[in-house]
Amino acid sequence: MEKNRDSRRKLAGGVELGLLPRLVGYMLRQSQLVIHHEFHAAVKQENIRAPQFSILEIIHRNPSIRPSDISKSLGISRANLVPLLAELEAGGTISRKTDETDGRAQALHLTPSGVAKLKRLHRIVQTVDERFAASLGPDGRETLLRLLQTLLHGATSA
Amino acid sequence: MEKNRDSRRKLAGGVELGLLPRLVGYMLRQSQLVIHHEFHAAVKQENIRAPQFSILEIIHRNPSIRPSDISKSLGISRANLVPLLAELEAGGTISRKTDETDGRAQALHLTPSGVAKLKRLHRIVQTVDERFAASLGPDGRETLLRLLQTLLHGATSA
Repeated sequence: MEKNRDSRRKLAGGVELGLLPRLVGYMLRQSQLVIHHEFHAAVKQENIRAPQFSILEIIHRNPSIRPSDISKSLGISRANLVPLLAELEAGGTISRKTDETDGRAQALHLTPSGVAKLKRLHRIVQTVDERFAASLGPDGRETLLRLLQTLLHGATSA
Repeated sequence: MEKNRDSRRKLAGGVELGLLPRLVGYMLRQSQLVIHHEFHAAVKQENIRAPQFSILEIIHRNPSIRPSDISKSLGISRANLVPLLAELEAGGTISRKTDETDGRAQALHLTPSGVAKLKRLHRIVQTVDERFAASLGPDGRETLLRLLQTLLHGATSA
């Protein structure tokens, strides 16, 4: 059956996907699942989950940031953020101090071991990300990043 | 501070994102979170979750498909698929029959009410998807779909 050979069928191992490959939402989700799986496998020895890498990067770039600002910038609910931060603190990669200007708020920092861990993660994550996008070539990768930036910005400002 | 005005900072509400916007994995995740949220809000009255729409579409296009083939094509684990199918069956949108060629296997079908529900969902999902990607224009949307297809195909065949 020659019809079986088109790319949609091949993608799903012989299953007809109908409308799905024409939907940006579906294609984003499937791509994200694959890279998430590759990321997870690559950082196994660092004992960290994907959102925790983003959290470390943000604390590193914004010392004294509060949990609520991390929630907002990453779109992680407060309820989901709490255990992620607790694990990072228990692992000795972040520390919490009381904010000088607001006694109730927590100010987050990386510990020296957290800085070293983030440096190792940078190398791993960039390797995974570049390998994942290798099929696009450098121009295709740039175009994809630009389109996703436009999508996110369009969605935020709409 | 003029530095605050670049698009990366604006995206995250004043938080410096560092390496993150240069990572395909991060940008896919953030985009996917936004459209998932919009999808969820739009299909509220249909009482359905995002993967269940994909499941209905696949059953519709592949009558008599087995749960294990749905798992493979959508990348949903068997453990996660079981409750999703149970909900669809309880809601009267799918039915399970015993496969004629393999007495142990289940063959899945849409009920007439499932076909009607999928038809309504098509309209809603396409509207959400097109609105979400409106900032890209038609050419940008096609380019994005093509790049994501290449990504997925490259990742699968690597």
